[in-house]
Amino acid sequence: MTVDTVLTPAEIDLLPRTDLSRTTCVVFDVLRATSSIVTALAHGARSVHPVLTIEEALALRERMPDALLGGERGGDPIPGFDVGTSPAEYVAAAGRRVITTTTNGTVALRACAGAARVLAAALLNVDAVASDLRRSAPQHVVIVGAGTFREAALEDVLAAGVLLHALDADAMNDASRAALAVHAATGGDLMSALRQSRNGRALAAQGRGDDVAWCARRSVWDVVPTMGADGAIRSR
Amino acid sequence: MTVDTVLTPAEIDLLPRTDLSRTTCVVFDVLRATSSIVTALAHGARSVHPVLTIEEALALRERMPDALLGGERGGDPIPGFDVGTSPAEYVAAAGRRVITTTTNGTVALRACAGAARVLAAALLNVDAVASDLRRSAPQHVVIVGAGTFREAALEDVLAAGVLLHALDADAMNDASRAALAVHAATGGDLMSALRQSRNGRALAAQGRGDDVAWCARRSVWDVVPTMGADGAIRSR
Repeated sequence: MTVDTVLTPAEIDLLPRTDLSRTTCVVFDVLRATSSIVTALAHGARSVHPVLTIEEALALRERMPDALLGGERGGDPIPGFDVGTSPAEYVAAAGRRVITTTTNGTVALRACAGAARVLAAALLNVDAVASDLRRSAPQHVVIVGAGTFREAALEDVLAAGVLLHALDADAMNDASRAALAVHAATGGDLMSALRQSRNGRALAAQGRGDDVAWCARRSVWDVVPTMGADGAIRSR
Repeated sequence: MTVDTVLTPAEIDLLPRTDLSRTTCVVFDVLRATSSIVTALAHGARSVHPVLTIEEALALRERMPDALLGGERGGDPIPGFDVGTSPAEYVAAAGRRVITTTTNGTVALRACAGAARVLAAALLNVDAVASDLRRSAPQHVVIVGAGTFREAALEDVLAAGVLLHALDADAMNDASRAALAVHAATGGDLMSALRQSRNGRALAAQGRGDDVAWCARRSVWDVVPTMGADGAIRSR
């Protein structure tokens, strides 16, 4: 198994021009999009529909009036939305479809649309994803760190390293090697690394330290969220 | 001092659209472009002129017939060129101007053209560059890892981490944090890390292990190669 890693939005922009037809993509947006997706599906959500904009979310809800609608702008709730973007809020998604607005996470997932399989991963389910990959044994895996705005996000680099450490890759690119080194340097202390990251510090400054703590937990659930041809993510 | 890091060619492509007018850029292409530049200047070369193509190199030599001309294609010497691309060959550059063909290194250096200062760095002179930055104390530093083809190169990530570790940055982006973690994970064993990298393995497979060993040495020389408005690099 060859496991390559892509860590910046600028590299993600190149994925749609890459032949991924024999590749399994694993997308991390640890703070907080994929952590929310994992939380929702682990609590019995039927599907999660990540979208980019409020407009797209509202249009989708027209077609799925039963769906739980989550999002916020600048930390403020959006009128007409059911919940914000804290992963813990998605515990309420049991039995429902979920629409959630997120920028980098949605961009990363959509960039992988041409892949044989697309999995959404977080620290919360990283070992379930690793088990799936060991079992399904694709020839090529691309780990995609969604990043933040135009930059790599430390929490996604770390998560890539945690996943790589749990796999038995026989070849990898240098970004995978770097991610493994970041994992090694943290010594397993995921919480400290997430608190040190740009997103972790920004969330703490907004009084959202609980979100960081939620997302820093390793393998709490064993769901393997898988993206369908319709862009919706369901538990395998 | 804020020290951000850029590690992939896709991010480097964005630099010309970035306001770098108050920024000092430090470009690493450890295997082997900036290691060759450092070697040449440390041995008394008057200037180094990095170019992209053989055609560009030959055109420049028309204007500078005295220049030492270095380059190769696929490991083979180029007819009419004086030397190849092994850093050790540039010891012969004493007192001369040097023209050298390199792809990623030249792209990275040219992408920084709008910066207040542009320095070429390698492990061979990393502490001299760190001293310069501590003394000149720019508000903003961008460390640029030239990478290989479209990907980050582990040796450049590591070199960025070594430089960051020698600085006293009071703010940094997540790529800088990741580079510091890569440095920490290597435990100072630069040679092993370079040998493990994609470029290091490729060079070893070509019988160029000596080049890797040459470039893995820390702070052998104290030159601080600086790019002028003409794109030529001179010792400060």
